[in-house]
Amino acid sequence: MAGAAGLSLAALSGTSAAAAEAVSSDSKDVTKTLARYLVNARYEDLPENVRKEGVRTLLNYVGVAIGGSHHETVDIAVSALSPFSGPPQAGLFGRSERFDIMTAAFVNGVSSHIFDYDDTHLKTIIHPGGPVISAILALAEMKPVNGRDFLNALVLGVETECRIGNAVYPNHYDVGWHITGTAGVFGAAAAAGRLMGLTEQQMVWALGLAASQPVGLRESFGSMNKSFNPGRAAADGLFAAILASKNFTSSDGMIEAKRGWANTISTKQDYREITGELGQRYEAALNTYKPFACGIVLHPAIDAAIQLRDENKLTAAQVKSIDMKVNPLVLELTGKKTPKEGLEGKFSVYHAVAVALIEGAGGEKQFSDRAVRDPAIIALRGKVNPVIDPAIKPEQVEMSIALADGRVLTKRIEHAIGSLERPMSNADLERKFRDLADGIIPAQQIATVMERCWNVETLASAADIVAAGRKAA
Amino acid sequence: MAGAAGLSLAALSGTSAAAAEAVSSDSKDVTKTLARYLVNARYEDLPENVRKEGVRTLLNYVGVAIGGSHHETVDIAVSALSPFSGPPQAGLFGRSERFDIMTAAFVNGVSSHIFDYDDTHLKTIIHPGGPVISAILALAEMKPVNGRDFLNALVLGVETECRIGNAVYPNHYDVGWHITGTAGVFGAAAAAGRLMGLTEQQMVWALGLAASQPVGLRESFGSMNKSFNPGRAAADGLFAAILASKNFTSSDGMIEAKRGWANTISTKQDYREITGELGQRYEAALNTYKPFACGIVLHPAIDAAIQLRDENKLTAAQVKSIDMKVNPLVLELTGKKTPKEGLEGKFSVYHAVAVALIEGAGGEKQFSDRAVRDPAIIALRGKVNPVIDPAIKPEQVEMSIALADGRVLTKRIEHAIGSLERPMSNADLERKFRDLADGIIPAQQIATVMERCWNVETLASAADIVAAGRKAA
Repeated sequence: MAGAAGLSLAALSGTSAAAAEAVSSDSKDVTKTLARYLVNARYEDLPENVRKEGVRTLLNYVGVAIGGSHHETVDIAVSALSPFSGPPQAGLFGRSERFDIMTAAFVNGVSSHIFDYDDTHLKTIIHPGGPVISAILALAEMKPVNGRDFLNALVLGVETECRIGNAVYPNHYDVGWHITGTAGVFGAAAAAGRLMGLTEQQMVWALGLAASQPVGLRESFGSMNKSFNPGRAAADGLFAAILASKNFTSSDGMIEAKRGWANTISTKQDYREITGELGQRYEAALNTYKPFACGIVLHPAIDAAIQLRDENKLTAAQVKSIDMKVNPLVLELTGKKTPKEGLEGKFSVYHAVAVALIEGAGGEKQFSDRAVRDPAIIALRGKVNPVIDPAIKPEQVEMSIALADGRVLTKRIEHAIGSLERPMSNADLERKFRDLADGIIPAQQIATVMERCWNVETLASAADIVAAGRKAA
Repeated sequence: MAGAAGLSLAALSGTSAAAAEAVSSDSKDVTKTLARYLVNARYEDLPENVRKEGVRTLLNYVGVAIGGSHHETVDIAVSALSPFSGPPQAGLFGRSERFDIMTAAFVNGVSSHIFDYDDTHLKTIIHPGGPVISAILALAEMKPVNGRDFLNALVLGVETECRIGNAVYPNHYDVGWHITGTAGVFGAAAAAGRLMGLTEQQMVWALGLAASQPVGLRESFGSMNKSFNPGRAAADGLFAAILASKNFTSSDGMIEAKRGWANTISTKQDYREITGELGQRYEAALNTYKPFACGIVLHPAIDAAIQLRDENKLTAAQVKSIDMKVNPLVLELTGKKTPKEGLEGKFSVYHAVAVALIEGAGGEKQFSDRAVRDPAIIALRGKVNPVIDPAIKPEQVEMSIALADGRVLTKRIEHAIGSLERPMSNADLERKFRDLADGIIPAQQIATVMERCWNVETLASAADIVAAGRKAA
């Protein structure tokens, strides 16, 4: 599903091979310059929109980490790693176990990505929250930190991974790397290193040890290995920062040197993306959140269905047919007519529109085995008629619902909810969070952990967020 | 120093880009075929020369791991990771601490590479022992295994990493990857997975999770980060096998798929190197061991000096001058005339020849601060006159020593000791081992651990090797 986004976004990113070549000489002191920024940047200097987006990134992350916490993938990871974990230093979202900080960061990172429902930096398709927040929330339990310093580290971590991602995207992603893991380890090391109080030289080494551990290949998509990647990036970034904090050395130019990270791992290197306008341009302000638990290509259709339903108080019984003009990618990627399992539902525009119209949502529950086997939804999906129209962009849809009473309702979407142009509101994010956490932790606890996320800047200890998001032992 | 070997060996490896392209289509079921071999190959079917080389690989590994165990790099790693380690499942060579198996594997892997004095698969410059043996000796302490099964796993691990290395060398190394770490993680996962009794499907997943964690860039050479790489490869391979043993899934074609490891990480893919002649051609039989603790380019000169010394009972007082014809690489890489610290001595042909002639050795002690500051050695190094001769190959030297009594002693080396053509004898390996372990564990313990390595095939528990190589608490 990230691939679907990639297909359209790579072309939109505006980076040409010629431009990349023209700038690959701007490679002086990239690692050092970034490290200097990371150890000096202050919470007080963060623009308000960046702070607000950082808080939303945190809330969305905690929601998806709780939501995924009882998936089979997480059960396996917990069972496999329990015999090897160090002291119970850090908790797991939605669960009662406690592990050493690196093991906890791994498991929470896996949980956060299981449903492919996490945040997205659209320019690179990096999911920034998983690697960074998994690492620093675990660390915050061991080494107390107030909410302002925590939020500053979160933003710096996201900034680091997205800037490094920008420098090598799209070539790096196109060749086969899962960029969330390869860039994510830098973000985790940077954020953790900042909270550990690394010196500039130690931060250079932390980034170097992070560069030595790229995680993840696209071939793993569709297996548990995909969620492994942000989890392992979180743990590897912590590992790098922990060693660097004791003066375990690396090279001073691991990102930009001739035989360093960017040259080894990508045919494009635009170092201005890493060191340009530090403290002025914020990639962290460009984070987005999925409103629906499926590939971005389906979002306009689901959005249209829910809007028509809500505006007209529609029920399935009223509907005669649902006609749509869609971008060709929609049928190429999500053309399954008769999905039999929940996961297959994510690849069926027929199911997605039908369930959205009946249930008014497109969350993980709408892509469950229960949902794809619901007779009412199956009946309605037979009335969904998507038609390809190359004039329709991937972010657009035109929907026309014919009712039994003869009326025809229409809706054109220019940008689906969750895009940069129509961001999820805070209320939308809360609804998504509740939907994910429902049944995993009690409602009162859901309210508490959301409240602590919104008010992270006032917390005396950021670890209070984990305390509220864990399951009682 | 690995770079020095690479320069000459890449050209000799006989792999052309055209040949690589011609075979890149032989990519069917590479991961599955390798996995099937790994779970089925039996100790009983190992040829005698392969078993013998496996034993020598083991002995050499334990020697270098003990030798490096009190280097500052290891002290830092132990101090940094102690607070996070799990139960004391596995010991550290030359030290008294015990850590969980992944942390122990990391530290032992770092120790084994510190002096750049470990084993070398010359076709790829992979140092095979560190990643594989660090992983399975740690595992053997937790999950008892007899010596025969242990040796079988060792050979399979070395086979895996060297075959995968062959498939992408030299392009993969040339672009910047530290191949010991990137290929090593496969070796560690394969060997550990075999000892855990993984099914074929689980082994496929273990290889896939290993593919997701390539470790190490050449830019880190010269820093602690270089030794980090084999250590982290050992730990990451264990991590992959542990998860796979509980059915944490990956793709079935992570090595060969379009967006898999080989295509993402190299411009050359020769899959016949991985799956061709499995159980017949053994890369593990081609392992070599450094007789001298410095770059291979210096080995012919040191070898010549020691031979002339021993054959003629030479003392420094007799020597008037030492003339040598050397390959151009010798002065390019090791032309330092007045080294001031031990490490600099490794880059001085003048020091290397002088200390070899006086002390009759080229071990780590001959490249210490003590050695480079010894007045007698400093005096003699002033009499060393290397002259470049392009007709002299990197593996050759012509040495001519003029004595005060008018005699001239000459020696021409075609292949230095430690090469495939003139392998280290078992007695040579024992001498190297004693030299490394001397002063770290008692002499009686040195004898015991060497005896257990030589007789590994008769051991009821391979963990006895670690027990004898640890320092008493």
